[in-house]
Amino acid sequence: MRIENYREAFLNYLEKNILVKEPENLYQPIDYIMSLGGKRMRPVLALMSCDLFGGDFYEAMEAALSVEMFHNFTLIHDDIMDSADLRRGKQTVHSKWDLNTAILSGDALMIQSNQRLEHYEGTTFKKLISLYNKTALEVCEGQQLDIDFERMLDVPMNAYIKMISFKTAVLVGASMKMGAIVAKASSKDQNKIYDFGLNLGIAFQLQDDFLDTFGSEDFGKRIGGDIVESKKTFLYIKALELADSEDKIKLLDLYSGAHNEDEKISEVKAIFIKYGIPELLQDEIQRFTLKAFNDIESLSLDKLKKAVLKDFGMSLMKRKT
Amino acid sequence: MRIENYREAFLNYLEKNILVKEPENLYQPIDYIMSLGGKRMRPVLALMSCDLFGGDFYEAMEAALSVEMFHNFTLIHDDIMDSADLRRGKQTVHSKWDLNTAILSGDALMIQSNQRLEHYEGTTFKKLISLYNKTALEVCEGQQLDIDFERMLDVPMNAYIKMISFKTAVLVGASMKMGAIVAKASSKDQNKIYDFGLNLGIAFQLQDDFLDTFGSEDFGKRIGGDIVESKKTFLYIKALELADSEDKIKLLDLYSGAHNEDEKISEVKAIFIKYGIPELLQDEIQRFTLKAFNDIESLSLDKLKKAVLKDFGMSLMKRKT
Repeated sequence: MRIENYREAFLNYLEKNILVKEPENLYQPIDYIMSLGGKRMRPVLALMSCDLFGGDFYEAMEAALSVEMFHNFTLIHDDIMDSADLRRGKQTVHSKWDLNTAILSGDALMIQSNQRLEHYEGTTFKKLISLYNKTALEVCEGQQLDIDFERMLDVPMNAYIKMISFKTAVLVGASMKMGAIVAKASSKDQNKIYDFGLNLGIAFQLQDDFLDTFGSEDFGKRIGGDIVESKKTFLYIKALELADSEDKIKLLDLYSGAHNEDEKISEVKAIFIKYGIPELLQDEIQRFTLKAFNDIESLSLDKLKKAVLKDFGMSLMKRKT
Repeated sequence: MRIENYREAFLNYLEKNILVKEPENLYQPIDYIMSLGGKRMRPVLALMSCDLFGGDFYEAMEAALSVEMFHNFTLIHDDIMDSADLRRGKQTVHSKWDLNTAILSGDALMIQSNQRLEHYEGTTFKKLISLYNKTALEVCEGQQLDIDFERMLDVPMNAYIKMISFKTAVLVGASMKMGAIVAKASSKDQNKIYDFGLNLGIAFQLQDDFLDTFGSEDFGKRIGGDIVESKKTFLYIKALELADSEDKIKLLDLYSGAHNEDEKISEVKAIFIKYGIPELLQDEIQRFTLKAFNDIESLSLDKLKKAVLKDFGMSLMKRKT
């Protein structure tokens, strides 16, 4: 089945299952954020994974809804922490309502996302809850590391990779593993599909770093946002590792204090290019993508199904924005 | 066994089980709030209930820890929503650290509280998670109703009773039911001990309303805090129901706009007393306490064990502050 079909099935299911209950002030913001759209990548992956492992993908629908709800809970609370006013071009929950509503609706959404897994029974249920809780806690730890890094001058590269793994990639891996658990795939397959999602998620996140600074402006996206915000991405961390002391001081200076935005972008980019950082980042993206593709090879799936996963990975990594 | 012994066993267990992990900025606030003290009523009730139903109360320790952690998660987030700077005489998490830390540490603590239940297996696990999620969502709904009531002029009494049930009493009932589930008590006993906790919790909360306005000042507690804050308690709602139109207007006026605090307290109290509201509140407390005691009667426990529950209820309702 094609990605588009999973997405359509999920959206139909979502529409029937997000109900505004009393008290309205608690549940309306939940309905709002869940209806904002997005690629629905995590639930789609849960359904696809279940399907590939021979399960009835419809049986994974509640797990898919659970991960999508959990993801949206993180959006509500992260938007508060980032003081973000817009999300997908619409007002964030805390700016449309207020801080207290965003905190409390986020809490309720997290509980509801866990509750969705009550659809399952026995060891399937136990495995899903354990994976959910472990992943959810890692996502919080990733968010904390992200906050901690803002205040650090020097972030070690392995800590950075851990941060993006926890903040984003573990939930991609968990979505796929949930599908495999529902399909009652072997433990080995469950773990390998998790690794596939994890590694692809890391590659995806590193590609975000690349595209934000060296992507195409064709799609109307502002290039250099990470530099303007002095975000410590792979590019910045690697440049600090490799630059000579003069450039290092220059980079540190550009990332602290106020600078003209366009000048800052072009000077930082020049340092990145001087030390071949974009190429090193491309190598790293390639490395994680290949790890993900290797994970596919060790799955006990037939060639056709492996090709589906590989195609999905390729299409994800070919994006230009 | 005496309440004090359950509490001591729980505190020992707590000390061994709350570890500060990395990232420290996420877990230190959790250690802080969990170490602030308090009566530990909910975990004690979980242990006591398990013991009374013939279980090994030590087996209920993870469930006890789960409810205490969940309760502390609500304290972190509620303190943000109430802009409270102090909790048990110490700084609240958001005032000791900051808003973002309080949101994120609260989220992590909620996940950890759910994770504690992974100690259990099979149908026990499923029942505990279902009860946990249902209760957790009700607690959020109770908090939302409490916020909603601040902006409402006229709160119906049944809505008020629902609010205090959800915000406080359901977690007391759930703590006792968890103990019963771990002890593998019959479904009927599980439900009845829940009702006991629920009704006792409502009585306890109504008694809070009474003591805040008509309690003794002997213990150094400021009397009249609810009136100063214009909180819509049982007393206020009942007075609006029964007062003649002149006193109703007076009460509404006293609860809106600025007034001298001492004058406000004495004028509001005078209206409460004029309409016999303190007595009506005492009747209501009595009614819920008797409901709780009736719930004890229908439990399949011997007389001695029923007496333990009744003694506990009596001791709780005899407090003067």
